[in-house]
Amino acid sequence: MTQGRKYKLQPRLIKGFRDIFAETYLARQWMIEQVRSVYEKYGFVPLETPALEYVDNLGKHIQETDSAEEGIFAFRDDDEELIALRYDLTAPLSRVFAQYTELTRPFRRYQLGTVWRDEKPGLGRFREFYQFDIDIVGSNKMSAEAEICSVICECMEKLNIKRGEYLVRVSNRKIVNAMMESCGIDHSDEKGNPTFKCLTTLRAIDKLDRLGMSGVVDLLGKGRKDETGDFTKGAELTSAQIDCIQKYLAVSSENRQKACDELFEIVKDTEVGQEGIDELRQIDNILQVLKIDEERVVFDPTIVRGLNYYTGPVFETVLTTCKNEKGEEVGFGSVFSGGRYDGLIERFTGQKVPATGASIGLDRLLEALKVSGRIKQRKATAQVFVTTMDKNLTAEYHKLAHSLREAGLNTELFMGKGKLNKQLKYADRWDIPVALLLGSNELAEGTVSIKDLYHGREIATEIADREVWRKEQPAQMTVSRENLVVEIKNILEKYGLN
Amino acid sequence: MTQGRKYKLQPRLIKGFRDIFAETYLARQWMIEQVRSVYEKYGFVPLETPALEYVDNLGKHIQETDSAEEGIFAFRDDDEELIALRYDLTAPLSRVFAQYTELTRPFRRYQLGTVWRDEKPGLGRFREFYQFDIDIVGSNKMSAEAEICSVICECMEKLNIKRGEYLVRVSNRKIVNAMMESCGIDHSDEKGNPTFKCLTTLRAIDKLDRLGMSGVVDLLGKGRKDETGDFTKGAELTSAQIDCIQKYLAVSSENRQKACDELFEIVKDTEVGQEGIDELRQIDNILQVLKIDEERVVFDPTIVRGLNYYTGPVFETVLTTCKNEKGEEVGFGSVFSGGRYDGLIERFTGQKVPATGASIGLDRLLEALKVSGRIKQRKATAQVFVTTMDKNLTAEYHKLAHSLREAGLNTELFMGKGKLNKQLKYADRWDIPVALLLGSNELAEGTVSIKDLYHGREIATEIADREVWRKEQPAQMTVSRENLVVEIKNILEKYGLN
Repeated sequence: MTQGRKYKLQPRLIKGFRDIFAETYLARQWMIEQVRSVYEKYGFVPLETPALEYVDNLGKHIQETDSAEEGIFAFRDDDEELIALRYDLTAPLSRVFAQYTELTRPFRRYQLGTVWRDEKPGLGRFREFYQFDIDIVGSNKMSAEAEICSVICECMEKLNIKRGEYLVRVSNRKIVNAMMESCGIDHSDEKGNPTFKCLTTLRAIDKLDRLGMSGVVDLLGKGRKDETGDFTKGAELTSAQIDCIQKYLAVSSENRQKACDELFEIVKDTEVGQEGIDELRQIDNILQVLKIDEERVVFDPTIVRGLNYYTGPVFETVLTTCKNEKGEEVGFGSVFSGGRYDGLIERFTGQKVPATGASIGLDRLLEALKVSGRIKQRKATAQVFVTTMDKNLTAEYHKLAHSLREAGLNTELFMGKGKLNKQLKYADRWDIPVALLLGSNELAEGTVSIKDLYHGREIATEIADREVWRKEQPAQMTVSRENLVVEIKNILEKYGLN
Repeated sequence: MTQGRKYKLQPRLIKGFRDIFAETYLARQWMIEQVRSVYEKYGFVPLETPALEYVDNLGKHIQETDSAEEGIFAFRDDDEELIALRYDLTAPLSRVFAQYTELTRPFRRYQLGTVWRDEKPGLGRFREFYQFDIDIVGSNKMSAEAEICSVICECMEKLNIKRGEYLVRVSNRKIVNAMMESCGIDHSDEKGNPTFKCLTTLRAIDKLDRLGMSGVVDLLGKGRKDETGDFTKGAELTSAQIDCIQKYLAVSSENRQKACDELFEIVKDTEVGQEGIDELRQIDNILQVLKIDEERVVFDPTIVRGLNYYTGPVFETVLTTCKNEKGEEVGFGSVFSGGRYDGLIERFTGQKVPATGASIGLDRLLEALKVSGRIKQRKATAQVFVTTMDKNLTAEYHKLAHSLREAGLNTELFMGKGKLNKQLKYADRWDIPVALLLGSNELAEGTVSIKDLYHGREIATEIADREVWRKEQPAQMTVSRENLVVEIKNILEKYGLN
């Protein structure tokens, strides 16, 4: 305890958690509204589930962990039952679908929600983040997959990512499995669970974008040492098997029909392979009708998705030309991913339920929009700021602010302490574009002075002389009360903030 | 394990938690948008903080509990530090304000978020719920309080609760404290903390609405036995003290100035009392300018608010005439409450920081809007439903759905199994107003059949004969593709769903 002073508590965040201020919040809010409007356009209905669930209900589906509690925030409730913060929105959806047997099926829901992972936080890797998913549960039709591709494209374009700047890459787990069979790799054990060789192979293929073919070949073989010296054990495939996989990975994704033909040649000997190709062809047919060509959606055999539970078509979406302000390419990984998971509800119902879905990566996309200058970020909600210079005019300031709000202008009234200069600095720091000045003279005259703070900021670098500012008052004008709203709207229009 | 069948996991919610489906979600979403627009109109900026915080940072402010962990979901992280799910949004705000010293002050933020309480769940009492707060931190001006009153009024009216149907009741903790001093009750000990007598007195006054004056008198005296036989220990005041409090509680709240005059007579001998009255008069002055009269905001000395941390003006908002469809009055308690808490940030900074705020009770208000029929609830986002009768026309169905979406209509394409009747039942159960039928005949003719499902539902009770339905097809018409969108929009307009 410091002498003569109260003990001070250290304000701090838990590692891997963050506070989100207006600039990020408002941008993300705009994104959410765009995405929601697309989801609703396709008739998806909202669902919300609790943050806390029983651990057995959640299952373990994030990654290959040893115990159910690993990687998640789990603890025991008063009844000594193990509960946890949800790590995704798919596990709770499975629980809901199994629980409410009266739900009319298929169930097409969207869900926006926070999820938590008790993982080592890193640069840009948080332990709490948003997911915003769509899923179609209870349909085995490829119409579902085709619509999800269409939804993804519309979302991207709503978010100012133009056609040609993103690419949805689709593959099919059935084809991957068939390929493994063709290459002589057992993909599942007698219980139907994927084998270690299978999982390691999938994970290796999944890293093609990041590690390139030679890195993948290492991981398919003995293993790979990364830059930090850490060694990852490989799948220990034979060189014939590795050659076989490389042939598969070399299939061209330029044309969907051609990709189907080439893949068919590799997997045609297995039933599951034929099924997988047939599914892709069905998706292609519908996409053609929707006029979604290879500029937007391709079939790419290198896509496998990390999660074990996928059973059919899988999707990833990449930004193809995301450049920062210096013109440098920036990679963001997949920004909208998913796939078919026909087995996830089985653990409740004992029966397979067909289901497919996808999840948009809001955080990554926001970062991409920021980096490439595709989003205008603001940290103010107020368009107008009313200064309060004269204590005797408090009521007048409230009246003024009130009249502006009635006119549809978001208005903040200053409530702190300090002279005019301090008040204007406050408005500038909060990024409010317009400030109003009302003293007893203006009141008597029926006028108000308007300061265009954005313009003031622009010319501040040019006009360094404080005397010039004092005398000439650039970026300031005095208008009559009748014209006030119009004049403010003119300024806001200039900045696209009307 | 059941013979011949896989082990089935029981899908279940943790007690006190709930799933929220479209009907409630969409209504709440609409409410959130209304409230958010008002908050932003007054220039409040959004903030988001993590769900998990260090327990010492949260402090214990929900109610009188023995340990910091009581009443909250707390557990130890990997570093053995005690962390918890936040129980409100004010404690995290205090942490943020103390942590980011660079934040320009005053800080006026809104925050929407889930909070959690590990309390015994009961009817309509959940352990996870939303809060949607505004706070002004760093201002000691009564302008803040006046604006919060104005915000509350605007929110209520945006939510279809008309003037006269709600009432904001304002009091001041300073006046309550002064009253206690005047009545000879010590309100704080040598450390400045409220005494047991003080807290018990406050809690007793807080229950006036629910228990009536005699119940309050019991609680001010020896104590009170409730209907279940449970005994609550009273404040053990003398009868002179109880008389003194009753005189205070009898102050009329019909006129704000008159209330100030009457209260002044009771507390004029104490400095804190004079301060409290002066603050109310300042609020009244501004409210008069804003033309907010006693139909909307009154000064009501019986309002104390349960929380210990309030230090100045406090608010509550009640629905005055909330009747259900049978015309019966329904009580909902306060739907928008708050107050000034100048000491809450002190535990971090060692210095008092003036702050005031209020929190809207979205759940209660939604319940009130539902009960009184003030909100139209829908469980569909889709306006149009495309049936898929003929497997060979799959591509055509997608094309049709796509063209409707392009025309701005939210459209769902059926993806389940089943004949037309089952599909129409599906659309009806999901509450979609319009269904489309397209067979090979219609395709050849360039027409589509439209079913008005809401109308069909209306006449279903009148026309019981299935033969009539089959032959006459009421609520159905066949239109050309060119007129399709217009005809659909006509039907939607009829139901206000355009």
